[in-house]
Amino acid sequence: MQLPVSPEVAANAVGNIENLVTLTSGQYTMGSLILMVSYGAHFAFILYFLMTSMQLAPRYRIVPIMSAIVMASAGLSLLREFTTWQDAYTLVGASYVPMQGESIFTNAFRYGNWTITVPILLTQLPIAFAISRPDLHKRAIRMSIPAVLMIWTGLYGQFGETGDFSRLNIWGVISTIFFVWLIIEVRGVITAAIANSPPQLVNWPKNLWYYFLATWGLYPIAYALPQLGFTGDIVVVRQLLFSIADISTKLIYGIILSRYLLRRSALEGY
Amino acid sequence: MQLPVSPEVAANAVGNIENLVTLTSGQYTMGSLILMVSYGAHFAFILYFLMTSMQLAPRYRIVPIMSAIVMASAGLSLLREFTTWQDAYTLVGASYVPMQGESIFTNAFRYGNWTITVPILLTQLPIAFAISRPDLHKRAIRMSIPAVLMIWTGLYGQFGETGDFSRLNIWGVISTIFFVWLIIEVRGVITAAIANSPPQLVNWPKNLWYYFLATWGLYPIAYALPQLGFTGDIVVVRQLLFSIADISTKLIYGIILSRYLLRRSALEGY
Amino acid sequence: MQLPVSPEVAANAVGNIENLVTLTSGQYTMGSLILMVSYGAHFAFILYFLMTSMQLAPRYRIVPIMSAIVMASAGLSLLREFTTWQDAYTLVGASYVPMQGESIFTNAFRYGNWTITVPILLTQLPIAFAISRPDLHKRAIRMSIPAVLMIWTGLYGQFGETGDFSRLNIWGVISTIFFVWLIIEVRGVITAAIANSPPQLVNWPKNLWYYFLATWGLYPIAYALPQLGFTGDIVVVRQLLFSIADISTKLIYGIILSRYLLRRSALEGY
Amino acid sequence: MQLPVSPEVAANAVGNIENLVTLTSGQYTMGSLILMVSYGAHFAFILYFLMTSMQLAPRYRIVPIMSAIVMASAGLSLLREFTTWQDAYTLVGASYVPMQGESIFTNAFRYGNWTITVPILLTQLPIAFAISRPDLHKRAIRMSIPAVLMIWTGLYGQFGETGDFSRLNIWGVISTIFFVWLIIEVRGVITAAIANSPPQLVNWPKNLWYYFLATWGLYPIAYALPQLGFTGDIVVVRQLLFSIADISTKLIYGIILSRYLLRRSALEGY
Amino acid sequence: MQLPVSPEVAANAVGNIENLVTLTSGQYTMGSLILMVSYGAHFAFILYFLMTSMQLAPRYRIVPIMSAIVMASAGLSLLREFTTWQDAYTLVGASYVPMQGESIFTNAFRYGNWTITVPILLTQLPIAFAISRPDLHKRAIRMSIPAVLMIWTGLYGQFGETGDFSRLNIWGVISTIFFVWLIIEVRGVITAAIANSPPQLVNWPKNLWYYFLATWGLYPIAYALPQLGFTGDIVVVRQLLFSIADISTKLIYGIILSRYLLRRSALEGY
Ligand SMILES: CC1=C(/C=C/C(C)=C/C=C/C(C)=C/C=O)C(C)(C)CCC1
Ligand SMILES: CC1=C(/C=C/C(C)=C/C=C/C(C)=C/C=O)C(C)(C)CCC1
Ligand SMILES: CC1=C(/C=C/C(C)=C/C=C/C(C)=C/C=O)C(C)(C)CCC1
Ligand SMILES: CC1=C(/C=C/C(C)=C/C=C/C(C)=C/C=O)C(C)(C)CCC1
Ligand SMILES: CC1=C(/C=C/C(C)=C/C=C/C(C)=C/C=O)C(C)(C)CCC1
Ligand code: NA
Ligand code: NA
Ligand code: NA
Ligand code: NA
Ligand code: NA
Ligand code: NA
Ligand code: NA
Ligand code: NA
Ligand code: NA
Ligand code: NA
Repeated sequence: MQLPVSPEVAANAVGNIENLVTLTSGQYTMGSLILMVSYGAHFAFILYFLMTSMQLAPRYRIVPIMSAIVMASAGLSLLREFTTWQDAYTLVGASYVPMQGESIFTNAFRYGNWTITVPILLTQLPIAFAISRPDLHKRAIRMSIPAVLMIWTGLYGQFGETGDFSRLNIWGVISTIFFVWLIIEVRGVITAAIANSPPQLVNWPKNLWYYFLATWGLYPIAYALPQLGFTGDIVVVRQLLFSIADISTKLIYGIILSRYLLRRSALEGY
Repeated sequence: MQLPVSPEVAANAVGNIENLVTLTSGQYTMGSLILMVSYGAHFAFILYFLMTSMQLAPRYRIVPIMSAIVMASAGLSLLREFTTWQDAYTLVGASYVPMQGESIFTNAFRYGNWTITVPILLTQLPIAFAISRPDLHKRAIRMSIPAVLMIWTGLYGQFGETGDFSRLNIWGVISTIFFVWLIIEVRGVITAAIANSPPQLVNWPKNLWYYFLATWGLYPIAYALPQLGFTGDIVVVRQLLFSIADISTKLIYGIILSRYLLRRSALEGY
Repeated sequence: MQLPVSPEVAANAVGNIENLVTLTSGQYTMGSLILMVSYGAHFAFILYFLMTSMQLAPRYRIVPIMSAIVMASAGLSLLREFTTWQDAYTLVGASYVPMQGESIFTNAFRYGNWTITVPILLTQLPIAFAISRPDLHKRAIRMSIPAVLMIWTGLYGQFGETGDFSRLNIWGVISTIFFVWLIIEVRGVITAAIANSPPQLVNWPKNLWYYFLATWGLYPIAYALPQLGFTGDIVVVRQLLFSIADISTKLIYGIILSRYLLRRSALEGY
Repeated sequence: MQLPVSPEVAANAVGNIENLVTLTSGQYTMGSLILMVSYGAHFAFILYFLMTSMQLAPRYRIVPIMSAIVMASAGLSLLREFTTWQDAYTLVGASYVPMQGESIFTNAFRYGNWTITVPILLTQLPIAFAISRPDLHKRAIRMSIPAVLMIWTGLYGQFGETGDFSRLNIWGVISTIFFVWLIIEVRGVITAAIANSPPQLVNWPKNLWYYFLATWGLYPIAYALPQLGFTGDIVVVRQLLFSIADISTKLIYGIILSRYLLRRSALEGY
Repeated sequence: MQLPVSPEVAANAVGNIENLVTLTSGQYTMGSLILMVSYGAHFAFILYFLMTSMQLAPRYRIVPIMSAIVMASAGLSLLREFTTWQDAYTLVGASYVPMQGESIFTNAFRYGNWTITVPILLTQLPIAFAISRPDLHKRAIRMSIPAVLMIWTGLYGQFGETGDFSRLNIWGVISTIFFVWLIIEVRGVITAAIANSPPQLVNWPKNLWYYFLATWGLYPIAYALPQLGFTGDIVVVRQLLFSIADISTKLIYGIILSRYLLRRSALEGY
């Protein structure tokens, strides 16, 4: 067995604070539990979205199919996070110690996965709110560009969370600028959606706007969290935050869009 | 090979009594068998619920789809319990000894999974019994709040089952208070369902009420069981209780709702 | 490397003779092959049953769906038997020796799985032969009770096959009494089915009766086989017997029922 | 690490020449690649056959469903061959050496799997060419009997390929006699199919006959190949031959039948 | 632990430069991330193509089904690349070192997989652009021949990338000649497609031509890349190039064809 290497070396090698912190049994189990529940929920809801798509007017069917794709892709990514978590810690006495053997934990898979899922999630919005074709394409692209830049700058920055935080903070700020740009683009889509909406359903895009801000806003909090300290509680709370955000921005968001479209399909006589 | 650590350390580190008890070969095999049969049954019945949903009136189709989601999510959780069980014990002479190597068994995955499945199971009830929309939402939320509080207080308490039982008992009582609150909310839904039911089918919600009490009531028994002693038989009986409860409250419950809805769909001329 | 423990200890610890017998390479490979072919066939025929159900009159669709559930559940159980077989033996020189490391082989998973699959297989019978509802329920339950008692007494007895055989034989006899009771109940269903059958199809329930006796009768033979000696050939022949029985009583039985129902659906104008 | 045992012992213990031959890195990688591509192709084409079956006249739908079953079952078997290949060799310096640890490679899984797939492949023929029912059953059985005898005698014989070849050759000849018998039965079906075929499609059964001879004939070549020497090239060429044969006799054969039936369904006004 | 063998031996044994290069933690994590995102995306889009095929005119349905087959087969291949990547490196201090234990990384699985996927991708083209049958077959075959020769010569050549580059370059040139031949054949299909296209959609084949050149052209760049040096950055950039190419030539290409066919189906009154 190989105990944790010296902090300075580790700071360069391990990427995430999970590999620097010794966990209690309860903390380790909570981490496993959070990741397990997350991948289970994502895989299970593939079924919901596939079955729902068959009940919508044809032009809207692609929206729950996109949710199913997001569920599958995020579920595979979360399953991988779970496996890596299990591999990364070893029980030594009554504690779970990282750096045993060759495996290290990484949150980078999450950022990689967002490169696929975030453009899909954003493109669902103008399709669901029936924005028509040339405008739809333009808006999808205009949202996806700041989104991808936000993710990649954040991905680069998060490797710095085990060091002196300047890398984490500088790239965090740059990423946030892209996030603000993204929010402006999303607001544009929401405004068009409100104009475009049947009067009985106009509250849906209005409320979705606040839902979007509240749930996407959880990710930067999780990003910044290591600055509060390298402790087991911070590690677990961050995984919890990531999971709440995942289930909110992908799964529940998809259910909201599907239920909106069930009503809209009915209103349009389908 | 590393033998079990001293009881005091273990009590803090292992969470569940499974990690403190040496099993005979028969006990170990029964534990594996119970978990294997459980995950197999849950996965296999996904097929039943998906196929059944296609035979119902459109407004009821979501109910078996929800059962399929519960099957998938619980099946993944039980597969994980099985794998952890296999990893947690090592054959030493003629006995299966825990604490070999790095893996410990945990029932906490079950509680984590309930956070997803229990709100779905409860929400199936007002949908199946055709309670109409604003009331449906209110009732689903009013049942889910005590349910989630019951689960999380129970999750916190069950980590105490290897210690002096005060943590187990105090949080068990708090959890039970939420359970009573939940039962009252469920009774409200059942009463509305009886009022709402076509006369030929009025016995279904009536009987489901007793079925609910009898099957959900198995979980607190499993929770309290370690107080009867840290023995291999208690370990196996508890896994058996959990599995009977799982198959009753999720799988058979889902079949009952589906068959009710097949009849109700027929009565409503579908 | 750890060689087999003394026979007396082993007899208490290992449950099944597979863990007491050294296999030749050919025997080991045949065992793997039998289990691999079995799980492959069960998984693959899920597709057959799901696709077939779509071609039947609605009231019969549940029958191939039940076969698909049985395929999935038994396939998972057989995959587990395969994995355990691979883990249980280690190549030492030119032989495969059990008891290396921590894994032991067990047939108990089979019995556990039957607890789920056998009631489903029996319930298929009155549904396929169009026995109407209150009678159908009564007959399904009256068959399932002796079936489950037969399985559980047999499960308890089979742990005795490595000892002095009295446990094996006493519980084998008790299990057989339940089997006889079950056969009488099944005969009742077959008689009702013959009465109930369109004249062109009356040979189907008649022949199924003999098919039932011939194929279900293979299981007690496999149960008793260890009394012929603890040899590699007996081990392989028993796995072969189990697999022939599995494919006959679940897969081919399901095909027979499905083809019967294809004709019956056509006769009933579907 | 344990180097290959002496040739005489190995000849009795290892079954297939793969376990006697040291591979270069290129040979090892080609073997992995061949098996990986094979299982990937078989699994992927399940989708093709399931989707195609929905486009055929009802009486022909079973034919692509049977292809899907064959794909699933053969894909699982080939995945197992791949895993066993990876486990069987260990990198020592610049070579891949067998017999390291406990795993040996075996081709016997292929023969086991044919016991399921070959009768299905043969039964597809009279169904696809619309031979009517009592004759269909008779012909399916008359083809399956020599086929299964051919497979099992070949399975027994192939265990002799590491010894003095008399076992390989004697059982190879016996197996070939059954193959000739099988070919005669298949010719009977083809002749009936030609008589039975709409004139525009009569070339399909005619050409399929030559396709059948050319592709099924690859298997005995692979069987006999070890007589050319125990070298890495022979090992790789044999896996390649097996894979070409698998993709030809199952996957492409299934595509041919499906495309024939698409046309036949159209001609029959579906 | 076994450190990298001497460069000369390694050059013959390891096939790809990945096995000669020590990675930083960031490089190793980026490699894992790229492969994980790739297989996740391919698997997830199976759902998209299966659901889309149901919305097209019957004659075009096969096109997204072919994309689904490509997704499944490539996803399995990429999952295998991911697993091999994880197995091939071991954390030593703060670096990931190859050649630890027995596993080596290989890109050859990619080339093997193309043997299946490339002919499917090429055959999609004339089907999607409604080229009628005898011509369609001729063109599919005329494209597939140079394609397969290109792949196999490239596969042979890429084993030379760890040596003195003459093997890499000679076979790279030969492969490129086949690529040019292939491009000429594809241009023929595109020209026929333009002639054949409804006027409103004529830009689709025109643009697809440039898309084809730009995306397929990424593969030879990845092939040649090791000549720029054996460094961790080159290793990561190559995996990134391969993944961008995979997602472009298979996934996005499939989406483009599907969306074209949705419009063409609508124009043809479906
Ligand atoms: C502002 C900001 C960030 C924002 C991330 C967001 C908003 C991610 C959303 C992800 C979603 C919705 C995923 C669904 O699959 C980062 C990159 C953490 C870096 C720190 C600054
Ligand atoms: C009262 C009580 C409990 C009740 C648990 C229940 C009622 C769980 C139901 C779970 C279901 C239905 C799961 C289905 O997926 C706990 C938490 C054990 C803690 C002890 C007190
Ligand atoms: C009489 C008898 C037995 C009978 C077992 C049977 C009849 C099992 C049938 C199983 C099936 C049909 C499974 C399908 O999934 C036992 C328990 C071996 C114990 C010995 C006596
Ligand atoms: C003649 C002969 C053989 C023929 C094998 C054949 C013809 C196998 C066909 C297999 C198929 C079609 C499998 C598809 O899943 C053996 C047994 C190798 C043994 C040597 C002699
Ligand atoms: C010209 C050239 C090559 C071209 C490869 C191509 C064009 C591959 C396309 C693959 C696709 C489209 C795969 C999709 O699944 C090689 C073989 C790298 C070798 C070097 C020269
Ligand atoms: Na671990
Ligand atoms: Na670690
Ligand atoms: Na174990
Ligand atoms: Na343990
Ligand atoms: Na083994
Ligand atoms: Na063993
Ligand atoms: Na190996
Ligand atoms: Na070996
Ligand atoms: Na590794
Ligand atoms: Na390596």
